[in-house]
Amino acid sequence: MSNARAPGTLYLVPTPLDFGCDTATALTEVLPDATLRVAAGLSHWITENAKSTRAFLKRVDAIHALSQPLQALHITELPRAVHKKGDHQGEFDARPLLQAALEGDDIGLVSEAGMPAVADPGSSVVRAAHALGLRVQPLVGPVSLLLALAASGLNGQNFAFVGYLPQDAHARLQRLRELEGLAQRGGQTQLFIETPYRNAALWSALLQGLQARTRVALASGLTLPDAHVRCLSVGEWRQAEPPPLDRPTVFSIGV
Amino acid sequence: MSNARAPGTLYLVPTPLDFGCDTATALTEVLPDATLRVAAGLSHWITENAKSTRAFLKRVDAIHALSQPLQALHITELPRAVHKKGDHQGEFDARPLLQAALEGDDIGLVSEAGMPAVADPGSSVVRAAHALGLRVQPLVGPVSLLLALAASGLNGQNFAFVGYLPQDAHARLQRLRELEGLAQRGGQTQLFIETPYRNAALWSALLQGLQARTRVALASGLTLPDAHVRCLSVGEWRQAEPPPLDRPTVFSIGV
Repeated sequence: MSNARAPGTLYLVPTPLDFGCDTATALTEVLPDATLRVAAGLSHWITENAKSTRAFLKRVDAIHALSQPLQALHITELPRAVHKKGDHQGEFDARPLLQAALEGDDIGLVSEAGMPAVADPGSSVVRAAHALGLRVQPLVGPVSLLLALAASGLNGQNFAFVGYLPQDAHARLQRLRELEGLAQRGGQTQLFIETPYRNAALWSALLQGLQARTRVALASGLTLPDAHVRCLSVGEWRQAEPPPLDRPTVFSIGV
Repeated sequence: MSNARAPGTLYLVPTPLDFGCDTATALTEVLPDATLRVAAGLSHWITENAKSTRAFLKRVDAIHALSQPLQALHITELPRAVHKKGDHQGEFDARPLLQAALEGDDIGLVSEAGMPAVADPGSSVVRAAHALGLRVQPLVGPVSLLLALAASGLNGQNFAFVGYLPQDAHARLQRLRELEGLAQRGGQTQLFIETPYRNAALWSALLQGLQARTRVALASGLTLPDAHVRCLSVGEWRQAEPPPLDRPTVFSIGV
């Protein structure tokens, strides 16, 4: 035991929001130096997708040289079932993925864009780290939900993110009205997201089904050159130029 | 009209989380270069507190020279009533504060720590910017709520931030149990904050009043050298070493 190293830390490493976009953001524009430096020094990674993590690390390497060649890094993908269904229900035991940390290596947790474990896979890994008594350190970087909330002008002192809406038209409308009720009665801003190809249907339902005075914000492309943020009442939106809906968008309902 | 400039942008400028702390974080550790560069270039500011904004801008100046001397900057404080009571109810019309943007100057919105308009004053100003058709651009930086959520290992696909709890002991316990119910029945992680001198009373109520299986995370000092993050079940917390409770802390309840 005399040679045992202290346990490693689980770092939550945010990535740029340009995943899948035509234009890449310079990493230094959206990640502080501490985040880049820690990322460059890690030899072990747990990720949603190894390929996108390697692409990210190549970009990091151009700013701070990686401590090891890319090929020598240990990059472990979360099981597909975990990141398809969400990993917060507690059925998935991620403790075996953290063995290297028990042996003294720091580990980085990443998703494809933004902050891991927030509207993205990863919470099972953080949960496992707490179960093992490991130190967990979140690093600073872009989080689309929070940028969208701040930019909406809606209540940021009481808000909820509720994930995706139902796909069925009737259930979706019912859910939208439920969220509108929560926003109007409790003053709690309601944020949600949708797969881009369903954005247009969601938008129609929202304009037709909600009350004219309810305020609705859209945010897309945040941190990118063509960012779009706008907040109007439903009544105003009905008269306004339609917003772009062809890319990932954070919707917010408030009063 | 031929000399009219295009309207300015309202930038939401995040600041470090070391406000009121003994140790200062190097700005480059928590703010990306784009945030620092934009901050250095702005001549107009709207803030919770002019003194802390000047202190922040002095730190920015050491990295990117300010475009104008500190004394020449236009720094406008939000009325005290707005930031005491919260400014999301819509009674405060912040449009007059944005006159410079209508005349072509960019304006920065800041709070004392973290992201303005998220668990902090500022949403009235963002609301006014949308009402005037101004561009709103949130910049990347630390947001304690989201760092705390990611680091909790609790459900980050469905969560709510509900602000402060009631001060009265009975009402507080009732509210805690209500939040526990929301977390257990709906799977929605519930985040809240408290004034540090009430943290100990809150913590006792929480340990005594919630169910043993409910999971509770605390996060404080995030991005600082002595950051503390831990998530255990209430049953485990009852047996564990008490967490530090003497500074601003984000509490999360989940399953």
